[in-house]
Amino acid sequence: MSGWVAVAGLGPGSDALITPEVRTALADATDVVGYSRYVDRIPKREGLCRHASENRVEAERSRHAMELAAEGRRVIVVSSGDPGVFAMASAMCEAIEAGPGTWRELDVRVLPGITAMLAASARVGAPLGHDFCAVNLSDNLKPWSLIEKRLRLVVEGDFACALYNPRSKARPDGFARVLALLRELCEPERLVIFARAVTTSDETVRTVPLNEAKPDMADMQTVVILGSSRTRRIERNGMAPLVYTPRSVTE
Amino acid sequence: MSGWVAVAGLGPGSDALITPEVRTALADATDVVGYSRYVDRIPKREGLCRHASENRVEAERSRHAMELAAEGRRVIVVSSGDPGVFAMASAMCEAIEAGPGTWRELDVRVLPGITAMLAASARVGAPLGHDFCAVNLSDNLKPWSLIEKRLRLVVEGDFACALYNPRSKARPDGFARVLALLRELCEPERLVIFARAVTTSDETVRTVPLNEAKPDMADMQTVVILGSSRTRRIERNGMAPLVYTPRSVTE
Repeated sequence: MSGWVAVAGLGPGSDALITPEVRTALADATDVVGYSRYVDRIPKREGLCRHASENRVEAERSRHAMELAAEGRRVIVVSSGDPGVFAMASAMCEAIEAGPGTWRELDVRVLPGITAMLAASARVGAPLGHDFCAVNLSDNLKPWSLIEKRLRLVVEGDFACALYNPRSKARPDGFARVLALLRELCEPERLVIFARAVTTSDETVRTVPLNEAKPDMADMQTVVILGSSRTRRIERNGMAPLVYTPRSVTE
Repeated sequence: MSGWVAVAGLGPGSDALITPEVRTALADATDVVGYSRYVDRIPKREGLCRHASENRVEAERSRHAMELAAEGRRVIVVSSGDPGVFAMASAMCEAIEAGPGTWRELDVRVLPGITAMLAASARVGAPLGHDFCAVNLSDNLKPWSLIEKRLRLVVEGDFACALYNPRSKARPDGFARVLALLRELCEPERLVIFARAVTTSDETVRTVPLNEAKPDMADMQTVVILGSSRTRRIERNGMAPLVYTPRSVTE
């Protein structure tokens, strides 16, 4: 029996957004490896070993998954959302590149999932319906100056932009600086969407103009979407507004 | 019986990537509306009316879907990939904004799907594993100058970038201009991924350095991913290489 690793995206929270491909891989696996929050989403069953670890140990977790597969185990590495978007797929590739040559002979697959920005976008309409960017606001692994540079370019290009990891207990102040920078660069009416715990029972989604956006509207479970200058809001009777970016840009 | 519209993403091609949420909506629907290629992916069944239309009639198709829902029908509008990424969700919002006020009282939902860039990224590893952008290369609805401006900013910010709709029969030459521009801006070794018909039986995926990229490597069914300057390739024994963008940027 030869081992494998599948780096699988569980989507933003709702089981109705887990793909059949991921379900099949979970049913075939002998081991599930991941951050404890995500491992907790996988139902227990006979023959499935669970290896939950804390946040920020992606490198160790990746090596552990590869070691298990090298022993012939069938290993699922679980990510929230999509594993290729600020999640485990890069960490796994880093581990393989730095690891023993035999790891390059193992069957490693990435199984895509619904990433948070697309679930958030769907909830409000289509704010990412034209060209857009995705920027991770954590400066754990990159300099703060690069975050600011990229945000300036995003606004210069009039992209819409999803902002991942806006705020955490370890980084309480960065998002206030981001909002201050965006207020310098954008008009006060620019639409900002705060989508928290989308598709879970804790979901809250609100859209505000930039001049009403506050740092504490975001936390670790929030993805923020900054509209482009053309992003629009359609009020509706008795329902949340629709927010969308038109497909056309005329000169 | 009150009508509704669900704008649903069918993912890139494989049925194993259609979410249970979309499957449930398809089972409840009375009508499916969309581009003929995508309507053809929905199995026929008693009680489901199929309304297939040609490409580039998104506005008419959106109005038709809203009219059906206003009559009390339960309507699925199908998109490939994710409906919010260069697909039907924006067109639907445009139609609602321009349409009669009663359309703002109808139940309209967007159901996310796996968009092409994330399926392509998963196939090769994690090329979008750090900050990235998504740019539609079609100039049907925006000036060519804006495409060039955005590509320059993408490279200046050292984003990875997914390039949607690189080339079509109606636009045979634009992608050659894009490659020429990228060769001016980037080093010749910059990695470029051509992912065609991902997750279907026609899938082909290749990764080449920018100086070997050719316009005819892309067609209407291709999504192209331009790596950042840090995107790396891991050769493997007897398998396609892994391509990924590391999570860290050090100063």
